[in-house]
Amino acid sequence: MKLMEEKILREGEVLSDDILKVGSFLNQNIDTEFLGQMAEEIAHLFEGKNVTKILTIEASGIAIAAAAGMSMGVPVLFAKKHRTSNVDGTVYSAMVHSFTHGEDYNVMVSRDYLHADDRVLLVDDFLASGNALRGLMSLGEQAGAELMGVAVAVEKCFTGAGDAFRAQGIQVEALAAIESMSKDGIVFRA
Amino acid sequence: MKLMEEKILREGEVLSDDILKVGSFLNQNIDTEFLGQMAEEIAHLFEGKNVTKILTIEASGIAIAAAAGMSMGVPVLFAKKHRTSNVDGTVYSAMVHSFTHGEDYNVMVSRDYLHADDRVLLVDDFLASGNALRGLMSLGEQAGAELMGVAVAVEKCFTGAGDAFRAQGIQVEALAAIESMSKDGIVFRA
Repeated sequence: MKLMEEKILREGEVLSDDILKVGSFLNQNIDTEFLGQMAEEIAHLFEGKNVTKILTIEASGIAIAAAAGMSMGVPVLFAKKHRTSNVDGTVYSAMVHSFTHGEDYNVMVSRDYLHADDRVLLVDDFLASGNALRGLMSLGEQAGAELMGVAVAVEKCFTGAGDAFRAQGIQVEALAAIESMSKDGIVFRA
Repeated sequence: MKLMEEKILREGEVLSDDILKVGSFLNQNIDTEFLGQMAEEIAHLFEGKNVTKILTIEASGIAIAAAAGMSMGVPVLFAKKHRTSNVDGTVYSAMVHSFTHGEDYNVMVSRDYLHADDRVLLVDDFLASGNALRGLMSLGEQAGAELMGVAVAVEKCFTGAGDAFRAQGIQVEALAAIESMSKDGIVFRA
């Protein structure tokens, strides 16, 4: 999505070789017209895949997932984060390690809302370490649901996580895929 | 919004005299077609008010706020919750007491995204104690922004918080306003 690359070049801010700030339009202040365009693009990329549910994770994935769900006409389920592993039998849960915050947390969804007949698209703002997405994949597996793919706003290709998913046969789509970045500039995947 | 009352009667679950479970369509699993209808209704209720920004709070307010922002053509800013009061000069912050979780937390937004010329609509899923909304109002005041009103999916009228805001001259709109509820049924405000 050329549009996302242009948006990042215009409004994003590279804070270091691995931190890109997009708070002005994506994950704190949300440009809703642009959000609608992102959603249409995600719907287009997974057209014909008969996705029945979008699964995301609080908090910054929710807006993109909600918009994509409206474009695709499917419900959106968001996993909650908890620091405790104090879970009961009413939820599916998975442990995730956050590199950003240097801690482990649990992601969980109620068993009521994820089922074996679901065809699930994972949506998030960033694909970096891939750990959050691996947690969501585990939730889907526990429910016996089918993984139809992953859509993210921004992929940091240099982590290798997105390509590792692709090597497993998973359709991974990034609206902008960054090969490298520094204060001198950003190189997008061709 | 008659539609929301019907949805609650059909899919909501009264767990106690003050807890209504709406996870099946509103705050965990999101019915995106219904989300679009809620957004249109919020846009209609604040038509002509020249709202420039929607302010909400993570996590369960984000989907409604994002959808309303798309309907109204305005950006959406979401305040983050932090347990620490360790804030710096780059943010506006306010302390909020959560009755649900029995703890205090900070809400904060970057000063970059909220300004004195903003005409702010607050959006959230529930209006119960009103504490989260009071925190958001404080953020707006700190920025010198103008409060144009409050839109929530569900108001628990029996707390009195919504009416206290109205008595201050604030336009408070609830898509469903619950006067009382118990396992025997729900009484909506006429």
